[in-house]
Amino acid sequence: MKVKRVASNEPEPLKTASQELGQNKIVLSESQLPTNWYNIVAELPFDVPRPLHPTEDRAVEIDDFDWLWPIECLRIELQEGLYRTDPWIEIPESILDVYRRYRPSPLVRARSLEKYLGTTAEIYYKREDLNPAGSHKFNTALVQAYYAAREQHSQIHTMVTDTGAGQWGAALAMACETLGLKCCVFMIRKSFDEKPYRRYLMRMAGADVYSSPSELTETGRNILRDDPENSGSLGIGMSEAIEYVKEDRGRRLALGCMSYYAVLHQSIIGLETKLQLEQIDRSPDLMLGCVGGGSNFTGFIAPFVPEKIGGSPIEFRAIEPDSIPTLSEGEYRYDWADFSELTPRILMYTLGHRFVPPPVHSGGLRYHGKTPVLSALVKHKVVDTRTFEQRRVFDAGRVFLRTEGVLAAPESAHAVLGAIDAARDASSSKRNPVIVMCLSGHGYLDLKGFSDVLDLDSSN
Amino acid sequence: MKVKRVASNEPEPLKTASQELGQNKIVLSESQLPTNWYNIVAELPFDVPRPLHPTEDRAVEIDDFDWLWPIECLRIELQEGLYRTDPWIEIPESILDVYRRYRPSPLVRARSLEKYLGTTAEIYYKREDLNPAGSHKFNTALVQAYYAAREQHSQIHTMVTDTGAGQWGAALAMACETLGLKCCVFMIRKSFDEKPYRRYLMRMAGADVYSSPSELTETGRNILRDDPENSGSLGIGMSEAIEYVKEDRGRRLALGCMSYYAVLHQSIIGLETKLQLEQIDRSPDLMLGCVGGGSNFTGFIAPFVPEKIGGSPIEFRAIEPDSIPTLSEGEYRYDWADFSELTPRILMYTLGHRFVPPPVHSGGLRYHGKTPVLSALVKHKVVDTRTFEQRRVFDAGRVFLRTEGVLAAPESAHAVLGAIDAARDASSSKRNPVIVMCLSGHGYLDLKGFSDVLDLDSSN
Repeated sequence: MKVKRVASNEPEPLKTASQELGQNKIVLSESQLPTNWYNIVAELPFDVPRPLHPTEDRAVEIDDFDWLWPIECLRIELQEGLYRTDPWIEIPESILDVYRRYRPSPLVRARSLEKYLGTTAEIYYKREDLNPAGSHKFNTALVQAYYAAREQHSQIHTMVTDTGAGQWGAALAMACETLGLKCCVFMIRKSFDEKPYRRYLMRMAGADVYSSPSELTETGRNILRDDPENSGSLGIGMSEAIEYVKEDRGRRLALGCMSYYAVLHQSIIGLETKLQLEQIDRSPDLMLGCVGGGSNFTGFIAPFVPEKIGGSPIEFRAIEPDSIPTLSEGEYRYDWADFSELTPRILMYTLGHRFVPPPVHSGGLRYHGKTPVLSALVKHKVVDTRTFEQRRVFDAGRVFLRTEGVLAAPESAHAVLGAIDAARDASSSKRNPVIVMCLSGHGYLDLKGFSDVLDLDSSN
Repeated sequence: MKVKRVASNEPEPLKTASQELGQNKIVLSESQLPTNWYNIVAELPFDVPRPLHPTEDRAVEIDDFDWLWPIECLRIELQEGLYRTDPWIEIPESILDVYRRYRPSPLVRARSLEKYLGTTAEIYYKREDLNPAGSHKFNTALVQAYYAAREQHSQIHTMVTDTGAGQWGAALAMACETLGLKCCVFMIRKSFDEKPYRRYLMRMAGADVYSSPSELTETGRNILRDDPENSGSLGIGMSEAIEYVKEDRGRRLALGCMSYYAVLHQSIIGLETKLQLEQIDRSPDLMLGCVGGGSNFTGFIAPFVPEKIGGSPIEFRAIEPDSIPTLSEGEYRYDWADFSELTPRILMYTLGHRFVPPPVHSGGLRYHGKTPVLSALVKHKVVDTRTFEQRRVFDAGRVFLRTEGVLAAPESAHAVLGAIDAARDASSSKRNPVIVMCLSGHGYLDLKGFSDVLDLDSSN
């Protein structure tokens, strides 16, 4: 009997996801990793105003805050020297060494999602969920820890921060471990109690993690005295972190997303995306991302902004939860980044620094303000915005899991829903746009949130 | 003032992880994806005995179990036709289409771990943790669902399985979703209660998930009557799954690791690894992996076995928990794969099919037997074994997180510890071996286990 080969047993075409030929993953080699960050403020046709002193009517100077931030971070934030003039900032070799361990990250064509939607659009997603600690945050945490560690005359030994759901805290913990620094995280109480997995991850990576409001700071003690059940907020956490830094000259603050330096570092995402799209001869019609403070989205679009300003029809869309509509409904004015008015005042869209965000599951988006550069881009109509209701976002996350096999963080699922809506619009008007989203993190540690919203625990 | 460039500010060399030049990630393009599986039994110089009937003294025939398994799976298991004779089995195009969405997976040089250990060895890890559902399991779940879906005359509508920690169940749920089948999972009660996240993930992917022992089957009801608090086992779960399949002609069983077909499908891991090592002009001195049923490890080493048999000094090392020492201390004899003696009897190392594994956190390793082909390789001294104590394994997982930035599953951390021990041996004897391990899955959903063992919750 002639041996029948398995291939000849091939059945009728199944409804597997991607029957069409063509590449799924656009991968760059380590040698293609960009060696500069893109410094968008140097090329904008409008100013992004510098921070003002917290209480005095003047610009912030380096000396005002050299106890709080690593000096190089402060130089970036205040747009000093080359940071005001030079669109390209060389990435230090030590950072490139670590970036090359996990970057460039893949850009993936969402063929299965496209097929599910029956869309005429092409959808791509940039996978920042595969990074150490599972989100884009490590891209800047590493650099902030590096700048702190190299201030050798300062003898900085500890980075301090606040975290909501814990993505930022986990990234900073791992960055500090890489650079030989200690890490101290004020985790907002609601997450500390309800999201123990990221707390375990931070501790496993070597960080000290405190529930905020805490008894360690005056801010925390005052709040707890008035309201022992206070569940915390990023604003309160930041105030506690700042106070804690002030107590010891060897400590410095790290910030996940509100700072311009975080945006600058996250431009690595956009630069890689640009190379990847060029490699397959595509240019984006629409780029989207979720915004908490705004760093992943702004870094993602930054290298594409000049062509928009030059007249290209490319669209940028920042997505927020409808319950935290900072860009869509906030005021554009100077405000503090923290609860206790310890930070510089920055010009941004804000819901007010005493705003208490509702307990949505996208912890990374629960923030009253948006980074000044993104706020300016929205103000000047370079970037448009959308707000989405939580249930629709989580449903989009489920569709993405079932089609692409990728579990997006609830934050990132906002971008997924944005892409789905745009793809549906495209199909109804028979256009073929190239839609590119930033998948900022994975949702493995957010499955409780998915279960709550999608009612997964009541099945069976 | 001349603008000073950041690069010129480079400080003294920091102790970042990888200062040396050289590639970290060995990446294959989609066009380099192997298009055949490697069928090791066709090339072994000894027989891997076929399964025996559960109760009668004869070999199993296809007809005995065509109600239980997809027929193509059964053909593989019984080494029928080309599966006995042909070392290369073509991968169906529909499977390649889906494989290309996430494969080839990267092989990574663990430079930071090497540096931490101060070892003279080179250490590489194959990243199966980046797959859909987070482990190697999807590689075979997809194929099993595919074979079931293409049996069009059988009108199979549902795949049924058991799962411990939930990695296998989650992979099958996503595979079924991809192929348009329903999925039913019996999850052992201890994990069902204590590891809700993977249960949420399975349900999010569309599966029905039941706590096992359950009231759905006679096996379950009998056990619960005698012992209402019974916490379940993989053996019990498999019995329940088999009973459940028997009730409906549209259901079939899927198996994560004990079957030979799972080993065959997992050979994709080893084939890619071989290409990747060839690409950097390396050949392995030692390959290691954890073993539950044995599929990830056996598929990983399979393409390298012929050179070992041909006289190459390459070593293969299978790692088990010291509390479940099947290969190290079990008997080599015919035994059932399940609790209720419903499966064929297979010749393997076994602790006995009524063995109740201790409640170690590596749920995927809590199994009494090891797949016949691996058992035969151990019996013929092609593969050696090690057992490790849980605390050392979890410490190795922590070291891996802190150096490589990758959170390994507790199961996979057994392989990490094996590599660390081997690298230390190498350094003490000043050799430069190439050590390659299979990182079978990620540990994001196992952080509670890490917390319990490493006492992370009592910090601060």
